[in-house]
Amino acid sequence: MLDLPQAEEVMKGVQAELHDCAFPLLDEVTYSSSLATAFKDADYCFLIGAKPRTKGMERADLLKDNGKIFIDTGKAINDHAKRTVKTIVVGNPANTNCLIASHYAKDLPKENFTAMTRLDHNRALTQLALKTGSRVTDIKQLCVWGNHSPTMYPDIRNATVKGKGATGLVDKKWINDEFTPRVQQRGAEIINLRKLSSAASAGSAAIDHMRDWVLGSNEWQSISFYSDGKTYGIPEGLIFSMPVTTKNGKYEVVKGLNLDDEDSKMRIKKTVDELLGERQAVEHLLK
Amino acid sequence: MLDLPQAEEVMKGVQAELHDCAFPLLDEVTYSSSLATAFKDADYCFLIGAKPRTKGMERADLLKDNGKIFIDTGKAINDHAKRTVKTIVVGNPANTNCLIASHYAKDLPKENFTAMTRLDHNRALTQLALKTGSRVTDIKQLCVWGNHSPTMYPDIRNATVKGKGATGLVDKKWINDEFTPRVQQRGAEIINLRKLSSAASAGSAAIDHMRDWVLGSNEWQSISFYSDGKTYGIPEGLIFSMPVTTKNGKYEVVKGLNLDDEDSKMRIKKTVDELLGERQAVEHLLK
Repeated sequence: MLDLPQAEEVMKGVQAELHDCAFPLLDEVTYSSSLATAFKDADYCFLIGAKPRTKGMERADLLKDNGKIFIDTGKAINDHAKRTVKTIVVGNPANTNCLIASHYAKDLPKENFTAMTRLDHNRALTQLALKTGSRVTDIKQLCVWGNHSPTMYPDIRNATVKGKGATGLVDKKWINDEFTPRVQQRGAEIINLRKLSSAASAGSAAIDHMRDWVLGSNEWQSISFYSDGKTYGIPEGLIFSMPVTTKNGKYEVVKGLNLDDEDSKMRIKKTVDELLGERQAVEHLLK
Repeated sequence: MLDLPQAEEVMKGVQAELHDCAFPLLDEVTYSSSLATAFKDADYCFLIGAKPRTKGMERADLLKDNGKIFIDTGKAINDHAKRTVKTIVVGNPANTNCLIASHYAKDLPKENFTAMTRLDHNRALTQLALKTGSRVTDIKQLCVWGNHSPTMYPDIRNATVKGKGATGLVDKKWINDEFTPRVQQRGAEIINLRKLSSAASAGSAAIDHMRDWVLGSNEWQSISFYSDGKTYGIPEGLIFSMPVTTKNGKYEVVKGLNLDDEDSKMRIKKTVDELLGERQAVEHLLK
Protein backbone atom coordinates (compact mmCIF):
# COMPACT_ATOMS: atom_id res chain seq x y z
CA MET A 1 0.00 0.00 0.00
CA LEU A 2 1.08 3.51 -0.74
CA ASP A 3 -0.39 6.66 0.67
CA LEU A 4 0.65 10.05 1.98
CA PRO A 5 2.62 10.16 5.24
CA GLN A 6 -0.40 11.57 7.10
CA ALA A 7 -2.40 8.48 6.11
CA GLU A 8 -0.14 6.07 8.00
CA GLU A 9 -2.78 5.29 10.63
CA VAL A 10 -5.31 4.57 7.91
CA MET A 11 -2.90 2.21 6.13
CA LYS A 12 -2.21 0.48 9.46
CA GLY A 13 -5.96 0.03 9.81
CA VAL A 14 -6.25 -1.53 6.35
CA GLN A 15 -3.28 -3.76 7.12
CA ALA A 16 -4.96 -4.84 10.37
CA GLU A 17 -8.23 -5.57 8.61
CA LEU A 18 -6.44 -7.67 5.97
CA HIS A 19 -4.48 -9.49 8.66
CA ASP A 20 -7.67 -10.22 10.57
CA CYS A 21 -9.26 -11.77 7.48
CA ALA A 22 -6.67 -14.56 7.76
CA PHE A 23 -6.90 -15.09 4.01
CA PRO A 24 -5.20 -18.38 3.14
CA LEU A 25 -3.45 -16.85 0.11
CA LEU A 26 -2.29 -13.62 1.73
CA ASP A 27 1.35 -13.82 2.67
CA GLU A 28 2.26 -10.29 3.69
CA VAL A 29 0.82 -6.78 3.80
CA THR A 30 3.21 -3.86 3.72
CA TYR A 31 2.64 -0.14 3.45
CA SER A 32 4.77 2.89 2.81
CA SER A 33 4.60 6.56 1.97
CA SER A 34 7.66 6.20 -0.27
CA LEU A 35 6.93 5.67 -3.96
CA ALA A 36 10.22 3.84 -4.42
CA THR A 37 9.44 1.37 -1.64
CA ALA A 38 5.83 0.83 -2.60
CA PHE A 39 6.52 0.08 -6.28
CA LYS A 40 9.70 -1.93 -5.78
CA ASP A 41 9.47 -5.06 -7.94
CA ALA A 42 5.71 -4.67 -8.27
CA ASP A 43 3.92 -7.13 -10.56
CA TYR A 44 0.46 -5.59 -10.38
CA CYS A 45 -0.36 -2.00 -9.49
CA PHE A 46 -3.83 -0.78 -8.56
CA LEU A 47 -3.80 3.02 -8.70
CA ILE A 48 -6.90 3.71 -6.69
CA GLY A 49 -6.18 7.08 -5.15
CA ALA A 50 -6.65 10.36 -6.92
CA LYS A 51 -7.77 13.82 -6.01
CA PRO A 52 -11.55 13.71 -6.23
CA ARG A 53 -13.50 16.44 -7.91
CA THR A 54 -15.09 18.79 -5.43
CA LYS A 55 -18.07 21.03 -5.95
CA GLY A 56 -17.40 23.95 -8.25
CA MET A 57 -14.02 22.58 -9.32
CA GLU A 58 -13.17 23.03 -12.99
CA ARG A 59 -12.18 19.95 -14.95
CA ALA A 60 -8.93 21.59 -15.93
CA ASP A 61 -8.00 22.07 -12.27
CA LEU A 62 -8.94 18.50 -11.50
CA LEU A 63 -6.78 17.22 -14.31
CA LYS A 64 -3.87 19.43 -13.30
CA ASP A 65 -3.95 18.38 -9.65
CA ASN A 66 -4.17 14.74 -10.58
CA GLY A 67 -1.49 15.24 -13.16
CA LYS A 68 1.06 15.87 -10.43
CA ILE A 69 0.10 12.66 -8.66
CA PHE A 70 0.30 10.55 -11.79
CA ILE A 71 3.57 12.04 -13.01
CA ASP A 72 5.30 10.87 -9.85
CA THR A 73 3.49 7.55 -9.94
CA GLY A 74 4.45 6.89 -13.55
CA LYS A 75 8.08 7.73 -12.86
CA ALA A 76 8.18 5.50 -9.80
CA ILE A 77 6.63 2.56 -11.62
CA ASN A 78 9.13 3.13 -14.42
CA ASP A 79 12.06 3.17 -12.02
CA HIS A 80 11.09 0.46 -9.55
CA ALA A 81 8.43 -1.97 -10.79
CA LYS A 82 9.05 -5.14 -12.75
CA ARG A 83 9.35 -4.67 -16.52
CA THR A 84 6.26 -6.88 -16.87
CA VAL A 85 4.19 -4.77 -14.46
CA LYS A 86 0.47 -4.58 -15.11
CA THR A 87 -1.15 -1.32 -14.01
CA ILE A 88 -4.80 -0.40 -13.64
CA VAL A 89 -5.84 3.18 -12.94
CA VAL A 90 -9.08 3.47 -10.96
CA GLY A 91 -8.76 7.01 -9.61
CA ASN A 92 -10.63 9.57 -11.69
CA PRO A 93 -10.32 10.99 -14.27
CA ALA A 94 -8.98 7.49 -14.81
CA ASN A 95 -8.25 7.51 -18.54
CA THR A 96 -6.27 10.72 -18.54
CA ASN A 97 -4.55 9.89 -15.25
CA CYS A 98 -3.46 6.66 -16.95
CA LEU A 99 -2.23 8.59 -19.96
CA ILE A 100 -0.03 10.75 -17.76
CA ALA A 101 1.34 7.82 -15.76
CA SER A 102 2.20 5.86 -18.90
CA HIS A 103 3.82 8.94 -20.44
CA TYR A 104 6.21 9.17 -17.50
CA ALA A 105 6.98 5.48 -17.52
CA LYS A 106 9.28 6.00 -20.49
CA ASP A 107 10.96 2.61 -20.39
CA LEU A 108 7.80 0.52 -20.13
CA PRO A 109 5.49 -0.62 -22.92
CA LYS A 110 2.30 1.40 -23.26
CA GLU A 111 0.23 -1.78 -22.98
CA ASN A 112 1.32 -2.15 -19.36
CA PHE A 113 -0.98 0.75 -18.47
CA THR A 114 -4.75 0.49 -18.44
CA ALA A 115 -7.69 2.36 -16.95
CA MET A 116 -10.79 0.73 -15.52
CA THR A 117 -14.01 0.55 -17.49
CA ARG A 118 -14.84 -2.89 -16.12
CA LEU A 119 -17.13 -1.31 -13.53
CA ASP A 120 -19.13 0.30 -16.33
CA HIS A 121 -19.07 -3.01 -18.19
CA ASN A 122 -20.38 -4.85 -15.11
CA ARG A 123 -23.04 -2.22 -14.55
CA ALA A 124 -24.18 -2.60 -18.16
CA LEU A 125 -24.28 -6.40 -17.80
CA THR A 126 -26.51 -6.17 -14.75
CA GLN A 127 -28.91 -3.64 -16.25
CA LEU A 128 -29.38 -5.80 -19.32
CA ALA A 129 -29.76 -8.92 -17.17
CA LEU A 130 -32.40 -7.24 -14.99
CA LYS A 131 -34.29 -6.00 -18.03
CA THR A 132 -34.30 -9.36 -19.81
CA GLY A 133 -34.87 -11.49 -16.70
CA SER A 134 -31.60 -13.28 -17.24
CA ARG A 135 -28.31 -13.71 -15.38
CA VAL A 136 -25.16 -11.77 -16.04
CA THR A 137 -23.51 -15.01 -17.10
CA ASP A 138 -26.14 -15.40 -19.82
CA ILE A 139 -24.82 -12.29 -21.56
CA LYS A 140 -21.94 -12.33 -24.04
CA GLN A 141 -20.29 -9.72 -26.24
CA LEU A 142 -21.30 -6.57 -24.43
CA CYS A 143 -18.78 -3.74 -24.26
CA VAL A 144 -18.14 -0.16 -23.21
CA TRP A 145 -16.31 2.25 -25.50
CA GLY A 146 -14.42 5.40 -24.65
CA ASN A 147 -13.89 7.35 -21.48
CA HIS A 148 -14.82 6.29 -17.97
CA SER A 149 -17.16 9.24 -17.71
CA PRO A 150 -20.77 10.05 -18.63
CA THR A 151 -19.72 10.14 -22.31
CA MET A 152 -18.91 6.42 -22.32
CA TYR A 153 -20.74 4.32 -24.88
CA PRO A 154 -22.19 1.10 -23.44
CA ASP A 155 -22.81 -0.99 -26.53
CA ILE A 156 -25.16 -3.97 -26.70
CA ARG A 157 -25.42 -4.13 -30.49
CA ASN A 158 -23.31 -7.29 -30.59
CA ALA A 159 -24.50 -8.69 -27.27
CA THR A 160 -26.38 -11.94 -26.88
CA VAL A 161 -28.58 -13.09 -24.03
CA LYS A 162 -28.76 -16.90 -23.81
CA GLY A 163 -27.61 -16.94 -27.41
CA LYS A 164 -30.20 -14.50 -28.71
CA GLY A 165 -29.37 -11.03 -29.99
CA ALA A 166 -29.89 -8.50 -27.20
CA THR A 167 -31.27 -5.80 -29.49
CA GLY A 168 -34.11 -8.14 -30.42
CA LEU A 169 -35.09 -8.48 -26.75
CA VAL A 170 -35.26 -4.83 -25.73
CA ASP A 171 -36.56 -1.82 -27.58
CA LYS A 172 -34.55 1.12 -28.83
CA LYS A 173 -36.34 3.51 -26.52
CA TRP A 174 -35.17 1.56 -23.49
CA ILE A 175 -31.60 1.49 -24.79
CA ASN A 176 -31.50 5.21 -25.47
CA ASP A 177 -33.62 6.59 -22.64
CA GLU A 178 -32.92 4.18 -19.82
CA PHE A 179 -30.05 1.75 -20.32
CA THR A 180 -27.44 4.08 -21.76
CA PRO A 181 -27.97 7.09 -19.45
CA ARG A 182 -28.31 4.83 -16.43
CA VAL A 183 -24.98 3.10 -17.06
CA GLN A 184 -23.37 6.43 -17.89
CA GLN A 185 -24.72 8.10 -14.72
CA ARG A 186 -24.58 5.11 -12.42
CA GLY A 187 -21.79 6.62 -10.34
CA ALA A 188 -23.97 9.60 -9.47
CA GLU A 189 -26.94 7.32 -8.76
CA ILE A 190 -24.86 5.35 -6.27
CA ILE A 191 -23.65 8.52 -4.56
CA ASN A 192 -27.25 9.69 -4.22
CA LEU A 193 -28.27 6.41 -2.58
CA ARG A 194 -25.23 5.83 -0.41
CA LYS A 195 -24.03 9.39 0.14
CA LEU A 196 -20.71 7.77 -0.74
CA SER A 197 -19.01 6.70 -3.96
CA SER A 198 -19.28 3.09 -5.05
CA ALA A 199 -16.67 1.11 -3.18
CA ALA A 200 -17.37 -2.63 -3.14
CA SER A 201 -18.39 -2.70 -6.80
CA ALA A 202 -15.38 -0.64 -7.88
CA GLY A 203 -13.06 -2.90 -5.89
CA SER A 204 -14.69 -5.99 -7.34
CA ALA A 205 -14.39 -4.63 -10.90
CA ALA A 206 -10.70 -3.82 -10.41
CA ILE A 207 -10.12 -7.41 -9.31
CA ASP A 208 -12.12 -8.71 -12.30
CA HIS A 209 -10.05 -6.54 -14.65
CA MET A 210 -6.71 -7.68 -13.30
CA ARG A 211 -7.69 -11.34 -12.87
CA ASP A 212 -8.88 -11.64 -16.46
CA TRP A 213 -5.85 -9.75 -17.75
CA VAL A 214 -3.50 -12.06 -15.88
CA LEU A 215 -5.34 -15.37 -16.19
CA GLY A 216 -7.10 -14.86 -19.52
CA SER A 217 -10.74 -15.03 -20.55
CA ASN A 218 -12.55 -15.69 -23.80
CA GLU A 219 -15.41 -13.43 -22.75
CA TRP A 220 -15.41 -9.86 -23.97
CA GLN A 221 -14.21 -7.41 -21.41
CA SER A 222 -13.90 -3.65 -21.55
CA ILE A 223 -10.45 -2.25 -20.88
CA SER A 224 -9.21 1.30 -21.47
CA PHE A 225 -5.79 1.17 -23.07
CA TYR A 226 -3.44 3.19 -25.24
CA SER A 227 -4.85 3.66 -28.71
CA ASP A 228 -2.39 2.90 -31.52
CA GLY A 229 -4.27 5.14 -33.96
CA LYS A 230 -4.97 2.23 -36.27
CA THR A 231 -7.95 0.71 -34.50
CA TYR A 232 -11.59 1.71 -34.97
CA GLY A 233 -10.54 5.19 -36.06
CA ILE A 234 -9.66 6.27 -32.53
CA PRO A 235 -6.93 8.94 -32.51
CA GLU A 236 -3.52 7.71 -31.45
CA GLY A 237 -2.45 8.19 -27.88
CA LEU A 238 -5.76 8.28 -26.06
CA ILE A 239 -6.52 5.82 -23.27
CA PHE A 240 -9.72 4.49 -24.75
CA SER A 241 -12.01 1.66 -23.69
CA MET A 242 -12.64 -1.09 -26.22
CA PRO A 243 -13.79 -4.69 -26.12
CA VAL A 244 -10.93 -7.13 -25.61
CA THR A 245 -10.29 -10.76 -24.87
CA THR A 246 -7.29 -11.88 -22.85
CA LYS A 247 -4.76 -14.68 -23.15
CA ASN A 248 -1.29 -15.39 -21.77
CA GLY A 249 -1.24 -12.14 -19.81
CA LYS A 250 -2.10 -10.00 -22.87
CA TYR A 251 -5.29 -8.29 -23.93
CA GLU A 252 -6.25 -8.18 -27.56
CA VAL A 253 -8.88 -5.92 -29.06
CA VAL A 254 -11.92 -7.59 -30.59
CA LYS A 255 -11.62 -6.89 -34.30
CA GLY A 256 -14.08 -6.44 -37.12
CA LEU A 257 -16.88 -4.69 -35.27
CA ASN A 258 -19.01 -2.13 -36.97
CA LEU A 259 -19.19 1.41 -35.63
CA ASP A 260 -20.69 2.91 -38.78
CA ASP A 261 -24.29 3.50 -37.73
CA GLU A 262 -25.19 7.11 -36.96
CA ASP A 263 -25.79 6.51 -33.28
CA SER A 264 -22.45 4.79 -32.74
CA LYS A 265 -20.59 7.44 -34.74
CA MET A 266 -22.18 10.19 -32.66
CA ARG A 267 -21.45 8.46 -29.36
CA ILE A 268 -17.87 7.56 -30.26
CA LYS A 269 -17.21 11.09 -31.44
CA LYS A 270 -18.53 12.53 -28.20
CA THR A 271 -16.32 10.42 -25.97
CA VAL A 272 -13.29 10.86 -28.28
CA ASP A 273 -13.79 14.62 -28.18
CA GLU A 274 -13.96 14.59 -24.41
CA LEU A 275 -10.74 12.61 -24.16
CA LEU A 276 -9.04 14.93 -26.66
CA GLY A 277 -10.17 17.85 -24.50
CA GLU A 278 -8.81 16.20 -21.37
CA ARG A 279 -5.51 15.54 -23.10
CA GLN A 280 -5.33 19.13 -24.22
CA ALA A 281 -5.89 20.32 -20.65
CA VAL A 282 -2.79 18.41 -19.50
CA GLU A 283 -0.77 18.87 -22.71
CA HIS A 284 1.91 20.84 -20.88
CA LEU A 285 2.51 17.77 -18.69
CA LEU A 286 3.00 15.49 -21.67
CA LYS A 287 6.06 17.15 -23.18
CA MET B 1 -31.75 -7.67 3.35
CA LEU B 2 -33.73 -6.45 6.29
CA ASP B 3 -33.51 -3.07 7.91
CA LEU B 4 -35.71 -0.38 9.42
CA PRO B 5 -38.06 1.50 7.07
CA GLN B 6 -35.92 4.63 7.31
CA ALA B 7 -32.96 2.67 5.97
CA GLU B 8 -34.59 1.94 2.63
CA GLU B 9 -32.25 4.22 0.69
CA VAL B 10 -29.26 2.54 2.30
CA MET B 11 -30.55 -0.91 1.38
CA LYS B 12 -31.14 0.30 -2.19
CA GLY B 13 -27.53 1.44 -2.21
CA VAL B 14 -26.29 -1.96 -1.04
CA GLN B 15 -28.50 -3.64 -3.63
CA ALA B 16 -27.06 -1.37 -6.33
CA GLU B 17 -23.50 -2.11 -5.23
CA LEU B 18 -24.16 -5.86 -5.31
CA HIS B 19 -25.83 -5.57 -8.71
CA ASP B 20 -22.87 -3.61 -10.04
CA CYS B 21 -20.47 -6.32 -8.92
CA ALA B 22 -22.08 -8.60 -11.54
CA PHE B 23 -21.17 -11.61 -9.42
CA PRO B 24 -21.62 -14.75 -11.53
CA LEU B 25 -23.30 -16.61 -8.66
CA LEU B 26 -25.62 -13.84 -7.51
CA ASP B 27 -29.12 -14.38 -8.80
CA GLU B 28 -31.19 -11.80 -6.99
CA VAL B 29 -30.95 -9.17 -4.26
CA THR B 30 -34.08 -8.21 -2.39
CA TYR B 31 -34.66 -6.01 0.62
CA SER B 32 -37.50 -5.33 2.96
CA SER B 33 -38.36 -3.71 6.24
CA SER B 34 -40.80 -6.51 7.01
CA LEU B 35 -39.44 -9.33 9.16
CA ALA B 36 -41.90 -11.78 7.63
CA THR B 37 -40.80 -10.95 4.08
CA ALA B 38 -37.10 -10.90 4.85
CA PHE B 39 -36.99 -14.26 6.63
CA LYS B 40 -39.45 -16.07 4.33
CA ASP B 41 -37.94 -19.47 3.48
CA ALA B 42 -34.46 -18.32 4.53
CA ASP B 43 -31.71 -20.94 4.48
CA TYR B 44 -28.96 -18.83 5.99
CA CYS B 45 -29.42 -15.76 8.18
CA PHE B 46 -26.67 -13.29 8.97
CA LEU B 47 -27.85 -11.12 11.86
CA ILE B 48 -25.43 -8.27 11.50
CA GLY B 49 -27.35 -5.34 12.88
CA ALA B 50 -27.68 -4.53 16.54
CA LYS B 51 -27.82 -1.44 18.67
CA PRO B 52 -24.21 -0.52 19.29
CA ARG B 53 -22.95 0.47 22.70
CA THR B 54 -22.55 4.20 23.03
CA LYS B 55 -20.37 6.08 25.46
CA GLY B 56 -21.57 5.93 29.04
CA MET B 57 -24.18 3.27 28.25
CA GLU B 58 -24.59 0.58 30.87
CA ARG B 59 -24.28 -3.02 29.75
CA ALA B 60 -27.71 -3.77 31.14
CA ASP B 61 -29.27 -1.08 28.94
CA LEU B 62 -27.38 -2.34 25.91
CA LEU B 63 -28.62 -5.85 26.51
CA LYS B 64 -32.18 -4.67 27.07
CA ASP B 65 -32.31 -2.57 23.89
CA ASN B 66 -30.85 -5.38 21.82
CA GLY B 67 -33.15 -7.81 23.53
CA LYS B 68 -36.13 -6.20 21.84
CA ILE B 69 -34.50 -6.51 18.42
CA PHE B 70 -33.59 -10.15 18.88
CA ILE B 71 -36.96 -11.18 20.32
CA ASP B 72 -38.66 -10.06 17.12
CA THR B 73 -35.93 -11.56 14.98
CA GLY B 74 -36.11 -14.92 16.74
CA LYS B 75 -39.88 -15.03 16.38
CA ALA B 76 -39.72 -14.13 12.69
CA ILE B 77 -37.11 -16.78 11.94
CA ASN B 78 -39.23 -19.27 13.85
CA ASP B 79 -42.36 -18.39 11.89
CA HIS B 80 -40.94 -17.87 8.39
CA ALA B 81 -37.52 -19.42 7.80
CA LYS B 82 -36.84 -22.97 6.64
CA ARG B 83 -36.73 -25.57 9.42
CA THR B 84 -33.09 -26.19 8.49
CA VAL B 85 -32.15 -22.51 8.75
CA LYS B 86 -28.61 -21.72 9.86
CA THR B 87 -28.25 -18.47 11.79
CA ILE B 88 -25.14 -16.52 12.72
CA VAL B 89 -25.37 -13.54 15.06
CA VAL B 90 -22.69 -10.91 14.45
CA GLY B 91 -24.28 -7.88 16.13
CA ASN B 92 -23.01 -7.32 19.65
CA PRO B 93 -23.38 -8.47 22.35
CA ALA B 94 -23.48 -11.37 19.92
CA ASN B 95 -23.64 -14.33 22.30
CA THR B 96 -26.50 -13.02 24.39
CA ASN B 97 -28.32 -11.63 21.37
CA CYS B 98 -28.12 -15.14 19.93
CA LEU B 99 -29.43 -16.59 23.18
CA ILE B 100 -32.48 -14.34 23.00
CA ALA B 101 -33.16 -15.06 19.33
CA SER B 102 -32.92 -18.81 19.82
CA HIS B 103 -35.17 -18.61 22.88
CA TYR B 104 -37.91 -17.04 20.79
CA ALA B 105 -37.49 -19.50 17.93
CA LYS B 106 -39.39 -22.09 19.96
CA ASP B 107 -39.94 -24.57 17.14
CA LEU B 108 -36.37 -24.64 15.88
CA PRO B 109 -33.46 -26.67 17.20
CA LYS B 110 -31.02 -24.74 19.37
CA GLU B 111 -28.13 -25.80 17.13
CA ASN B 112 -29.55 -23.67 14.31
CA PHE B 113 -28.41 -20.57 16.22
CA THR B 114 -24.79 -19.55 16.54
CA ALA B 115 -22.80 -16.43 17.36
CA MET B 116 -19.60 -15.40 15.66
CA THR B 117 -16.22 -15.97 17.28
CA ARG B 118 -14.59 -16.76 13.95
CA LEU B 119 -13.29 -13.19 13.74
CA ASP B 120 -11.49 -13.68 17.07
CA HIS B 121 -10.28 -17.05 15.82
CA ASN B 122 -8.92 -15.48 12.64
CA ARG B 123 -7.29 -12.66 14.60
CA ALA B 124 -5.59 -15.22 16.85
CA LEU B 125 -4.38 -17.20 13.81
CA THR B 126 -2.78 -14.12 12.31
CA GLN B 127 -1.10 -12.97 15.50
CA LEU B 128 0.45 -16.40 15.99
CA ALA B 129 1.47 -16.55 12.32
CA LEU B 130 3.12 -13.12 12.50
CA LYS B 131 4.95 -14.05 15.70
CA THR B 132 6.26 -17.37 14.39
CA GLY B 133 7.00 -16.17 10.86
CA SER B 134 4.53 -18.64 9.41
CA ARG B 135 1.34 -18.53 7.42
CA VAL B 136 -2.15 -18.82 8.81
CA THR B 137 -2.56 -22.06 6.87
CA ASP B 138 0.44 -23.52 8.75
CA ILE B 139 -1.52 -23.33 12.01
CA LYS B 140 -3.87 -26.07 13.19
CA GLN B 141 -5.92 -26.66 16.33
CA LEU B 142 -6.19 -23.14 17.62
CA CYS B 143 -9.45 -22.07 19.24
CA VAL B 144 -11.30 -19.36 21.11
CA TRP B 145 -13.45 -20.17 24.14
CA GLY B 146 -16.32 -18.24 25.65
CA ASN B 147 -17.85 -14.89 24.94
CA HIS B 148 -17.15 -12.64 21.95
CA SER B 149 -15.90 -9.95 24.31
CA PRO B 150 -12.63 -9.04 26.02
CA THR B 151 -13.12 -12.03 28.38
CA MET B 152 -12.75 -14.52 25.51
CA TYR B 153 -10.00 -17.11 25.89
CA PRO B 154 -7.85 -17.53 22.77
CA ASP B 155 -6.18 -20.87 23.35
CA ILE B 156 -3.02 -22.04 21.60
CA ARG B 157 -2.18 -24.87 24.01
CA ASN B 158 -3.18 -27.48 21.43
CA ALA B 159 -2.12 -25.51 18.39
CA THR B 160 0.60 -26.59 16.00
CA VAL B 161 2.62 -24.49 13.58
CA LYS B 162 3.92 -26.53 10.66
CA GLY B 163 3.37 -29.59 12.82
CA LYS B 164 5.26 -28.28 15.86
CA GLY B 165 3.58 -27.41 19.15
CA ALA B 166 2.90 -23.67 19.26
CA THR B 167 3.68 -23.33 22.95
CA GLY B 168 7.22 -24.55 22.26
CA LEU B 169 7.71 -21.74 19.72
CA VAL B 170 6.60 -18.73 21.77
CA ASP B 171 7.15 -17.90 25.41
CA LYS B 172 4.55 -17.68 28.12
CA LYS B 173 5.15 -14.01 28.63
CA TRP B 174 4.24 -13.29 25.02
CA ILE B 175 1.08 -15.40 25.30
CA ASN B 176 -0.07 -13.70 28.48
CA ASP B 177 1.11 -10.13 27.96
CA GLU B 178 0.79 -9.70 24.20
CA PHE B 179 -1.07 -12.40 22.32
CA THR B 180 -4.07 -12.87 24.63
CA PRO B 181 -4.83 -9.21 25.40
CA ARG B 182 -4.24 -8.22 21.80
CA VAL B 183 -6.74 -10.74 20.45
CA GLN B 184 -9.18 -9.86 23.24
CA GLN B 185 -8.87 -6.11 22.59
CA ARG B 186 -8.41 -6.24 18.83
CA GLY B 187 -11.79 -4.65 18.18
CA ALA B 188 -10.78 -1.54 20.14
CA GLU B 189 -7.38 -1.47 18.41
CA ILE B 190 -9.09 -1.45 15.00
CA ILE B 191 -11.45 1.34 16.05
CA ASN B 192 -8.47 3.40 17.20
CA LEU B 193 -6.74 2.97 13.84
CA ARG B 194 -9.72 3.31 11.56
CA LYS B 195 -12.05 5.45 13.67
CA LEU B 196 -14.54 2.80 12.58
CA SER B 197 -15.34 -0.75 13.65
CA SER B 198 -13.82 -3.63 11.74
CA ALA B 199 -15.94 -4.24 8.67
CA ALA B 200 -14.14 -6.23 5.97
CA SER B 201 -12.64 -8.66 8.47
CA ALA B 202 -15.95 -9.15 10.28
CA GLY B 203 -17.71 -9.75 6.97
CA SER B 204 -15.02 -12.17 5.87
CA ALA B 205 -15.22 -14.07 9.17
CA ALA B 206 -19.01 -14.36 8.93
CA ILE B 207 -18.59 -15.87 5.46
CA ASP B 208 -15.89 -18.25 6.75
CA HIS B 209 -18.17 -19.32 9.61
CA MET B 210 -21.17 -20.03 7.39
CA ARG B 211 -19.17 -21.61 4.55
CA ASP B 212 -17.45 -24.07 6.87
CA TRP B 213 -20.70 -24.84 8.68
CA VAL B 214 -22.46 -25.56 5.40
CA LEU B 215 -19.66 -27.21 3.42
CA GLY B 216 -17.68 -28.80 6.26
CA SER B 217 -14.07 -28.56 7.32
CA ASN B 218 -11.69 -30.80 9.23
CA GLU B 219 -9.86 -27.78 10.61
CA TRP B 220 -10.77 -26.56 14.05
CA GLN B 221 -13.03 -23.55 14.00
CA SER B 222 -14.46 -21.51 16.83
CA ILE B 223 -18.24 -21.24 16.93
CA SER B 224 -20.40 -19.93 19.76
CA PHE B 225 -23.36 -22.24 20.23
CA TYR B 226 -25.88 -23.35 22.82
CA SER B 227 -24.21 -25.22 25.67
CA ASP B 228 -25.88 -28.50 26.60
CA GLY B 229 -24.46 -28.40 30.14
CA LYS B 230 -22.55 -31.63 29.61
CA THR B 231 -19.54 -30.32 27.74
CA TYR B 232 -16.36 -28.95 29.32
CA GLY B 233 -18.27 -27.98 32.45
CA ILE B 234 -19.93 -25.00 30.79
CA PRO B 235 -23.33 -24.22 32.36
CA GLU B 236 -26.30 -25.23 30.29
CA GLY B 237 -27.98 -22.61 28.13
CA LEU B 238 -25.14 -20.21 27.46
CA ILE B 239 -24.08 -19.39 23.91
CA PHE B 240 -20.44 -20.29 24.37
CA SER B 241 -17.56 -20.50 21.90
CA MET B 242 -15.77 -23.82 21.63
CA PRO B 243 -13.59 -25.56 19.06
CA VAL B 244 -15.60 -27.51 16.51
CA THR B 245 -15.18 -29.34 13.26
CA THR B 246 -17.95 -29.43 10.67
CA LYS B 247 -19.43 -32.12 8.43
CA ASN B 248 -22.66 -32.58 6.50
CA GLY B 249 -24.01 -29.20 7.61
CA LYS B 250 -23.42 -29.91 11.32
CA TYR B 251 -20.80 -28.68 13.74
CA GLU B 252 -19.40 -31.00 16.36
CA VAL B 253 -17.41 -29.97 19.39
CA VAL B 254 -13.81 -31.17 19.59
CA LYS B 255 -13.78 -33.58 22.52
CA GLY B 256 -11.20 -34.64 25.07
CA LEU B 257 -9.37 -31.36 25.54
CA ASN B 258 -7.90 -30.44 28.86
CA LEU B 259 -9.02 -27.26 30.62
CA ASP B 260 -7.62 -28.23 34.01
CA ASP B 261 -4.56 -25.98 34.27
CA GLU B 262 -4.92 -22.98 36.56
CA ASP B 263 -4.70 -20.44 33.77
CA SER B 264 -7.40 -22.11 31.66
CA LYS B 265 -9.67 -22.57 34.68
CA MET B 266 -9.34 -18.89 35.55
CA ARG B 267 -9.97 -17.71 32.01
CA ILE B 268 -12.93 -20.02 31.41
CA LYS B 269 -14.47 -18.98 34.74
CA LYS B 270 -14.13 -15.32 33.85
CA THR B 271 -15.87 -15.62 30.50
CA VAL B 272 -18.53 -17.99 31.91
CA ASP B 273 -19.23 -15.50 34.70
CA GLU B 274 -19.59 -12.69 32.21
CA LEU B 275 -22.06 -14.68 30.12
CA LEU B 276 -24.02 -15.66 33.26
CA GLY B 277 -24.17 -11.97 34.15
CA GLU B 278 -25.38 -11.07 30.68
CA ARG B 279 -28.02 -13.74 30.85
CA GLN B 280 -29.16 -12.48 34.23
CA ALA B 281 -29.50 -8.96 32.82
CA VAL B 282 -31.99 -10.22 30.23
CA GLU B 283 -33.58 -12.91 32.39
CA HIS B 284 -36.97 -11.20 32.27
CA LEU B 285 -36.90 -11.61 28.47
CA LEU B 286 -36.23 -15.34 28.67
CA LYS B 287 -39.40 -16.40 30.47
